[in-house]
Amino acid sequence: MSPTTETLTAERILEATEDVLRRHGPAKATVVDVARALGVSHGSVYRHFRTKAALRAAVTKRWLDRTSETLSAITADESRAPGTRLRDWLAALFEAKRRKAGDDPELFATYMVLTGETGEVVEEHLADLTGQLTRIIEAGVASGAFTAADPATTATAVFHATGRFHDPGYHRVWERPGAQEDFTALVDLLLRGLGRAS
Amino acid sequence: MSPTTETLTAERILEATEDVLRRHGPAKATVVDVARALGVSHGSVYRHFRTKAALRAAVTKRWLDRTSETLSAITADESRAPGTRLRDWLAALFEAKRRKAGDDPELFATYMVLTGETGEVVEEHLADLTGQLTRIIEAGVASGAFTAADPATTATAVFHATGRFHDPGYHRVWERPGAQEDFTALVDLLLRGLGRAS
Repeated sequence: MSPTTETLTAERILEATEDVLRRHGPAKATVVDVARALGVSHGSVYRHFRTKAALRAAVTKRWLDRTSETLSAITADESRAPGTRLRDWLAALFEAKRRKAGDDPELFATYMVLTGETGEVVEEHLADLTGQLTRIIEAGVASGAFTAADPATTATAVFHATGRFHDPGYHRVWERPGAQEDFTALVDLLLRGLGRAS
Repeated sequence: MSPTTETLTAERILEATEDVLRRHGPAKATVVDVARALGVSHGSVYRHFRTKAALRAAVTKRWLDRTSETLSAITADESRAPGTRLRDWLAALFEAKRRKAGDDPELFATYMVLTGETGEVVEEHLADLTGQLTRIIEAGVASGAFTAADPATTATAVFHATGRFHDPGYHRVWERPGAQEDFTALVDLLLRGLGRAS
Protein backbone atom coordinates (compact mmCIF):
# COMPACT_ATOMS: atom_id res chain seq x y z
CA MET A 1 0.00 0.00 0.00
CA SER A 2 1.51 3.34 -0.99
CA PRO A 3 1.30 6.14 1.59
CA THR A 4 -1.12 8.22 -0.49
CA THR A 5 -3.83 5.54 -0.49
CA GLU A 6 -4.31 5.94 3.27
CA THR A 7 -6.50 8.73 4.56
CA LEU A 8 -4.38 11.68 5.63
CA THR A 9 -5.16 12.06 9.33
CA ALA A 10 -3.65 14.52 11.81
CA GLU A 11 -2.10 11.55 13.60
CA ARG A 12 -0.33 10.36 10.41
CA ILE A 13 1.00 13.88 9.84
CA LEU A 14 2.30 14.04 13.41
CA GLU A 15 4.01 10.66 13.09
CA ALA A 16 5.68 11.78 9.87
CA THR A 17 6.65 15.10 11.48
CA GLU A 18 8.38 13.29 14.32
CA ASP A 19 10.32 11.17 11.79
CA VAL A 20 11.31 14.25 9.80
CA LEU A 21 12.39 16.07 12.96
CA ARG A 22 14.49 13.08 14.00
CA ARG A 23 16.18 12.91 10.57
CA HIS A 24 16.66 16.61 9.76
CA GLY A 25 16.84 18.14 13.25
CA PRO A 26 14.55 20.90 14.52
CA ALA A 27 16.39 23.71 12.72
CA LYS A 28 16.07 22.23 9.23
CA ALA A 29 12.78 20.26 9.23
CA THR A 30 10.15 21.91 7.01
CA VAL A 31 6.49 21.31 6.17
CA VAL A 32 7.61 20.41 2.63
CA ASP A 33 9.78 17.60 4.11
CA VAL A 34 6.76 16.30 6.01
CA ALA A 35 4.53 16.43 2.90
CA ARG A 36 7.19 14.66 0.84
CA ALA A 37 7.54 11.89 3.46
CA LEU A 38 3.77 11.34 3.25
CA GLY A 39 3.61 11.58 -0.55
CA VAL A 40 1.12 14.47 -0.37
CA SER A 41 1.19 18.18 -1.26
CA HIS A 42 2.18 20.65 1.46
CA GLY A 43 -1.31 22.15 1.01
CA SER A 44 -2.77 18.87 2.36
CA VAL A 45 -0.64 19.22 5.48
CA TYR A 46 -1.69 22.85 5.91
CA ARG A 47 -5.36 21.78 5.80
CA HIS A 48 -4.71 19.98 9.13
CA PHE A 49 -2.17 22.40 10.64
CA ARG A 50 -2.49 25.97 9.51
CA THR A 51 1.10 27.00 10.17
CA LYS A 52 4.46 25.38 10.68
CA ALA A 53 4.38 26.66 14.27
CA ALA A 54 0.99 24.97 14.85
CA LEU A 55 2.39 21.69 13.51
CA ARG A 56 5.44 21.93 15.75
CA ALA A 57 3.25 22.74 18.77
CA ALA A 58 0.96 19.78 18.01
CA VAL A 59 3.83 17.30 17.71
CA THR A 60 5.28 18.61 20.98
CA LYS A 61 1.92 18.25 22.73
CA ARG A 62 1.62 14.68 21.45
CA TRP A 63 5.07 13.86 22.85
CA LEU A 64 4.26 15.39 26.24
CA ASP A 65 0.82 13.73 26.33
CA ARG A 66 2.41 10.28 26.12
CA THR A 67 3.87 10.93 29.60
CA SER A 68 0.71 12.51 31.04
CA GLU A 69 -1.43 9.55 29.97
CA THR A 70 0.72 6.99 31.78
CA LEU A 71 0.60 9.16 34.87
CA SER A 72 -3.14 9.81 34.80
CA ALA A 73 -3.76 6.06 35.08
CA ILE A 74 -1.82 6.12 38.37
CA THR A 75 -3.61 9.28 39.55
CA ALA A 76 -6.98 7.57 39.04
CA ASP A 77 -5.99 4.25 40.64
CA GLU A 78 -7.87 4.33 43.93
CA SER A 79 -6.79 0.79 44.74
CA ARG A 80 -3.43 2.27 45.74
CA ALA A 81 -3.11 4.17 49.04
CA PRO A 82 -2.38 7.89 48.42
CA GLY A 83 1.22 7.60 49.71
CA THR A 84 1.90 4.70 47.37
CA ARG A 85 0.14 6.50 44.54
CA LEU A 86 2.28 9.61 45.04
CA ARG A 87 5.49 7.59 45.18
CA ASP A 88 4.53 5.53 42.11
CA TRP A 89 3.48 8.65 40.20
CA LEU A 90 6.80 10.44 40.84
CA ALA A 91 8.75 7.26 40.02
CA ALA A 92 6.79 6.83 36.76
CA LEU A 93 7.47 10.45 35.78
CA PHE A 94 11.20 10.07 36.46
CA GLU A 95 11.28 6.74 34.59
CA ALA A 96 9.36 8.09 31.58
CA LYS A 97 11.70 11.08 31.25
CA ARG A 98 14.81 8.98 31.77
CA ARG A 99 13.67 6.52 29.12
CA LYS A 100 12.90 9.30 26.62
CA ALA A 101 16.35 10.84 27.14
CA GLY A 102 18.27 7.56 27.17
CA ASP A 103 16.53 5.57 24.42
CA ASP A 104 16.57 8.24 21.71
CA PRO A 105 18.91 11.10 22.69
CA GLU A 106 18.57 12.88 19.33
CA LEU A 107 14.80 12.96 19.48
CA PHE A 108 15.02 14.11 23.10
CA ALA A 109 17.35 16.96 22.10
CA THR A 110 14.90 17.84 19.31
CA TYR A 111 12.02 18.03 21.76
CA MET A 112 14.13 20.14 24.14
CA VAL A 113 14.35 22.69 21.30
CA LEU A 114 10.63 22.40 20.52
CA THR A 115 9.52 22.80 24.15
CA GLY A 116 11.61 25.97 24.26
CA GLU A 117 9.52 27.35 21.37
CA THR A 118 6.07 26.29 22.50
CA GLY A 119 5.62 27.96 25.87
CA GLU A 120 1.86 27.56 25.94
CA VAL A 121 1.92 23.81 25.25
CA VAL A 122 4.50 23.31 28.00
CA GLU A 123 2.54 25.46 30.47
CA GLU A 124 -0.57 23.33 29.85
CA HIS A 125 1.42 20.15 30.32
CA LEU A 126 2.86 21.39 33.63
CA ALA A 127 -0.61 22.49 34.77
CA ASP A 128 -1.94 19.02 33.90
CA LEU A 129 0.81 17.32 35.91
CA THR A 130 0.46 19.55 38.99
CA GLY A 131 -3.33 19.07 38.71
CA GLN A 132 -2.81 15.31 38.89
CA LEU A 133 -0.54 15.72 41.92
CA THR A 134 -3.19 17.94 43.55
CA ARG A 135 -5.78 15.17 43.15
CA ILE A 136 -3.49 12.60 44.77
CA ILE A 137 -2.75 14.94 47.67
CA GLU A 138 -6.46 15.72 48.09
CA ALA A 139 -7.15 11.98 48.23
CA GLY A 140 -4.50 11.67 50.94
CA VAL A 141 -5.99 14.55 52.94
CA ALA A 142 -9.45 12.96 52.62
CA SER A 143 -8.20 9.59 53.86
CA GLY A 144 -6.24 11.18 56.72
CA ALA A 145 -2.89 9.98 55.33
CA PHE A 146 -1.63 13.47 54.44
CA THR A 147 -1.76 16.89 56.04
CA ALA A 148 -1.88 19.79 53.57
CA ALA A 149 -3.64 23.08 54.23
CA ASP A 150 -3.74 23.86 50.51
CA PRO A 151 -3.27 20.75 48.32
CA ALA A 152 -2.62 22.77 45.13
CA THR A 153 0.21 24.72 46.80
CA THR A 154 1.66 21.52 48.22
CA ALA A 155 1.39 19.83 44.82
CA THR A 156 3.39 22.66 43.25
CA ALA A 157 5.99 22.35 46.01
CA VAL A 158 6.28 18.57 45.40
CA PHE A 159 6.60 19.16 41.66
CA HIS A 160 9.30 21.81 42.17
CA ALA A 161 11.12 19.67 44.76
CA THR A 162 11.42 16.79 42.30
CA GLY A 163 12.48 18.92 39.31
CA ARG A 164 15.92 17.32 39.27
CA PHE A 165 14.19 14.05 38.33
CA HIS A 166 11.90 15.30 35.59
CA ASP A 167 13.12 18.65 34.27
CA PRO A 168 14.83 17.90 30.91
CA GLY A 169 17.64 20.33 31.79
CA TYR A 170 18.87 17.71 34.29
CA HIS A 171 18.89 14.79 31.85
CA ARG A 172 22.64 14.35 32.24
CA VAL A 173 22.33 13.42 35.93
CA TRP A 174 19.64 10.77 35.39
CA GLU A 175 22.09 8.04 34.38
CA ARG A 176 24.67 8.85 37.03
CA PRO A 177 25.38 6.19 39.67
CA GLY A 178 23.29 6.99 42.73
CA ALA A 179 20.54 8.86 40.87
CA GLN A 180 17.90 6.32 41.89
CA GLU A 181 19.02 6.45 45.56
CA ASP A 182 18.99 10.27 45.45
CA PHE A 183 15.47 10.15 44.06
CA THR A 184 14.31 7.73 46.78
CA ALA A 185 15.83 9.83 49.59
CA LEU A 186 14.08 12.93 48.24
CA VAL A 187 10.69 11.22 47.91
CA ASP A 188 11.04 9.75 51.43
CA LEU A 189 11.63 13.25 52.80
CA LEU A 190 8.64 14.68 50.89
CA LEU A 191 6.33 11.88 52.04
CA ARG A 192 7.40 12.49 55.64
CA GLY A 193 6.60 16.17 55.09
CA LEU A 194 3.14 15.25 53.83
CA GLY A 195 2.37 13.57 57.08
CA ARG A 196 3.34 9.94 57.00
CA ALA A 197 6.14 7.69 55.78
CA SER A 198 4.95 5.31 53.11
CA MET B 1 49.43 55.74 42.04
CA SER B 2 49.88 53.78 38.81
CA PRO B 3 48.79 50.12 38.85
CA THR B 4 52.36 48.85 38.52
CA THR B 5 53.50 50.43 41.79
CA GLU B 6 51.22 48.10 43.77
CA THR B 7 52.43 44.60 44.55
CA LEU B 8 50.96 42.11 42.08
CA THR B 9 48.94 39.76 44.29
CA ALA B 10 46.78 36.81 43.22
CA GLU B 11 43.75 38.75 44.49
CA ARG B 12 44.58 41.77 42.25
CA ILE B 13 44.93 39.46 39.25
CA LEU B 14 41.59 37.83 40.02
CA GLU B 15 39.87 41.22 40.33
CA ALA B 16 41.31 42.30 36.99
CA THR B 17 40.32 38.97 35.43
CA GLU B 18 36.72 39.46 36.52
CA ASP B 19 36.73 42.95 34.95
CA VAL B 20 38.22 41.62 31.73
CA LEU B 21 35.69 38.78 31.60
CA ARG B 22 32.86 41.25 32.13
CA ARG B 23 34.12 43.51 29.33
CA HIS B 24 35.26 40.96 26.73
CA GLY B 25 33.05 37.97 27.55
CA PRO B 26 34.32 34.49 28.43
CA ALA B 27 35.05 33.49 24.81
CA LYS B 28 37.38 36.40 24.06
CA ALA B 29 39.09 37.25 27.38
CA THR B 30 42.81 36.38 27.33
CA VAL B 31 45.68 36.44 29.81
CA VAL B 32 47.23 39.23 27.72
CA ASP B 33 44.10 41.34 28.32
CA VAL B 34 44.44 40.74 32.06
CA ALA B 35 48.13 41.67 32.05
CA ARG B 36 47.41 44.81 30.04
CA ALA B 37 44.66 45.86 32.47
CA LEU B 38 47.16 45.53 35.32
CA GLY B 39 50.03 47.21 33.42
CA VAL B 40 52.25 44.13 33.83
CA SER B 41 53.71 41.49 31.48
CA HIS B 42 51.73 38.32 30.87
CA GLY B 43 54.70 36.46 32.38
CA SER B 44 53.93 38.17 35.71
CA VAL B 45 50.38 36.80 35.58
CA TYR B 46 51.65 33.32 34.72
CA ARG B 47 53.90 33.39 37.79
CA HIS B 48 50.68 33.36 39.90
CA PHE B 49 48.50 31.20 37.62
CA ARG B 50 50.38 28.73 35.49
CA THR B 51 47.76 28.39 32.75
CA LYS B 52 44.78 30.30 31.42
CA ALA B 53 42.60 27.40 32.62
CA ALA B 54 44.05 27.72 36.15
CA LEU B 55 43.27 31.45 36.14
CA ARG B 56 39.71 30.84 34.98
CA ALA B 57 39.22 28.13 37.60
CA ALA B 58 40.57 30.44 40.34
CA VAL B 59 38.29 33.34 39.41
CA THR B 60 35.31 30.95 39.33
CA LYS B 61 36.22 29.57 42.75
CA ARG B 62 36.47 33.12 44.13
CA TRP B 63 32.99 33.91 42.79
CA LEU B 64 31.48 30.75 44.27
CA ASP B 65 33.31 31.26 47.58
CA ARG B 66 31.59 34.61 48.08
CA THR B 67 28.30 32.68 48.45
CA SER B 68 29.77 29.90 50.62
CA GLU B 69 31.23 32.38 53.07
CA THR B 70 27.91 34.13 53.74
CA LEU B 71 26.31 30.75 54.26
CA SER B 72 29.00 29.35 56.55
CA ALA B 73 28.32 32.18 59.01
CA ILE B 74 24.71 30.94 59.24
CA THR B 75 25.82 27.30 59.51
CA ALA B 76 28.00 28.18 62.49
CA ASP B 77 25.43 30.37 64.25
CA GLU B 78 24.35 28.21 67.18
CA SER B 79 22.21 31.02 68.59
CA ARG B 80 19.62 30.09 65.95
CA ALA B 81 17.53 26.93 66.42
CA PRO B 82 18.37 24.31 63.74
CA GLY B 83 15.00 24.76 61.96
CA THR B 84 15.52 28.51 61.76
CA ARG B 85 19.12 28.02 60.71
CA LEU B 86 18.09 25.68 57.89
CA ARG B 87 15.37 28.06 56.69
CA ASP B 88 17.71 31.07 56.87
CA TRP B 89 20.49 29.18 55.10
CA LEU B 90 18.25 28.16 52.19
CA ALA B 91 16.80 31.68 51.97
CA ALA B 92 20.30 33.21 51.97
CA LEU B 93 21.41 30.84 49.20
CA PHE B 94 18.37 31.72 47.08
CA GLU B 95 18.85 35.43 47.75
CA ALA B 96 22.58 35.36 46.94
CA LYS B 97 21.96 33.59 43.64
CA ARG B 98 19.04 35.81 42.72
CA ARG B 99 21.09 38.92 43.45
CA LYS B 100 24.03 37.66 41.39
CA ALA B 101 21.74 36.94 38.43
CA GLY B 102 19.68 40.11 38.72
CA ASP B 103 22.31 42.73 39.59
CA ASP B 104 24.82 41.88 36.89
CA PRO B 105 23.26 39.56 34.27
CA GLU B 106 26.30 39.70 31.97
CA LEU B 107 28.72 38.66 34.68
CA PHE B 108 26.27 35.94 35.74
CA ALA B 109 26.13 34.63 32.15
CA THR B 110 29.94 34.71 32.08
CA TYR B 111 30.15 32.63 35.23
CA MET B 112 27.58 30.19 33.85
CA VAL B 113 30.04 29.55 31.01
CA LEU B 114 33.00 29.30 33.42
CA THR B 115 31.25 26.88 35.80
CA GLY B 116 30.53 24.69 32.77
CA GLU B 117 34.31 24.50 32.13
CA THR B 118 35.53 23.98 35.68
CA GLY B 119 33.82 20.78 36.83
CA GLU B 120 36.17 20.20 39.74
CA VAL B 121 35.74 23.68 41.24
CA VAL B 122 31.97 23.33 41.01
CA GLU B 123 32.02 19.84 42.56
CA GLU B 124 34.03 21.18 45.51
CA HIS B 125 31.60 24.06 45.93
CA LEU B 126 28.59 21.72 45.93
CA ALA B 127 30.35 19.40 48.41
CA ASP B 128 31.03 22.42 50.65
CA LEU B 129 27.37 23.48 50.54
CA THR B 130 25.95 20.00 51.22
CA GLY B 131 28.54 19.63 54.00
CA GLN B 132 27.18 22.81 55.61
CA LEU B 133 23.62 21.47 55.28
CA THR B 134 24.74 18.19 56.86
CA ARG B 135 26.09 20.08 59.89
CA ILE B 136 22.81 21.97 60.36
CA ILE B 137 20.82 18.72 60.10
CA GLU B 138 23.16 16.99 62.55
CA ALA B 139 22.63 19.88 64.98
CA GLY B 140 18.86 19.39 64.60
CA VAL B 141 19.13 15.66 65.22
CA ALA B 142 21.28 16.31 68.30
CA SER B 143 18.75 18.81 69.71
CA GLY B 144 15.80 16.52 68.94
CA ALA B 145 14.29 19.00 66.47
CA PHE B 146 14.92 16.84 63.39
CA THR B 147 14.67 13.16 62.59
CA ALA B 148 17.19 11.96 59.99
CA ALA B 149 18.66 8.46 59.93
CA ASP B 150 21.55 9.66 57.77
CA PRO B 151 22.08 13.45 57.90
CA ALA B 152 24.39 13.51 54.86
CA THR B 153 21.80 11.72 52.69
CA THR B 154 19.06 14.00 53.97
CA ALA B 155 21.26 17.06 53.31
CA THR B 156 21.72 15.97 49.71
CA ALA B 157 17.94 15.46 49.39
CA VAL B 158 17.30 18.98 50.75
CA PHE B 159 19.88 20.45 48.38
CA HIS B 160 18.36 18.62 45.40
CA ALA B 161 14.80 19.52 46.45
CA THR B 162 15.66 23.22 46.46
CA GLY B 163 17.59 23.20 43.16
CA ARG B 164 14.95 25.36 41.51
CA PHE B 165 16.00 28.14 43.88
CA HIS B 166 19.77 27.94 43.54
CA ASP B 167 20.68 26.11 40.34
CA PRO B 168 21.77 28.82 37.83
CA GLY B 169 19.86 27.01 35.06
CA TYR B 170 16.65 28.23 36.75
CA HIS B 171 17.66 31.91 36.97
CA ARG B 172 14.79 32.94 34.71
CA VAL B 173 12.16 31.81 37.24
CA TRP B 174 13.70 33.66 40.21
CA GLU B 175 12.15 37.01 39.32
CA ARG B 176 8.72 35.62 38.39
CA PRO B 177 5.76 36.67 40.54
CA GLY B 178 5.16 33.98 43.14
CA ALA B 179 8.76 32.72 43.23
CA GLN B 180 9.16 33.69 46.89
CA GLU B 181 5.85 32.01 47.85
CA ASP B 182 6.87 28.88 45.91
CA PHE B 183 10.16 28.85 47.78
CA THR B 184 8.43 29.23 51.16
CA ALA B 185 5.92 26.43 50.43
CA LEU B 186 8.78 24.12 49.45
CA VAL B 187 10.86 24.90 52.55
CA ASP B 188 7.77 24.44 54.77
CA LEU B 189 7.24 20.98 53.30
CA LEU B 190 10.92 20.04 53.77
CA LEU B 191 10.96 21.26 57.37
CA ARG B 192 7.85 19.20 58.10
CA GLY B 193 9.64 16.23 56.54
CA LEU B 194 12.61 16.81 58.84
CA GLY B 195 10.42 16.40 61.84
CA ARG B 196 8.99 19.70 62.91
CA ALA B 197 7.52 22.86 61.45
CA SER B 198 9.64 25.90 62.18
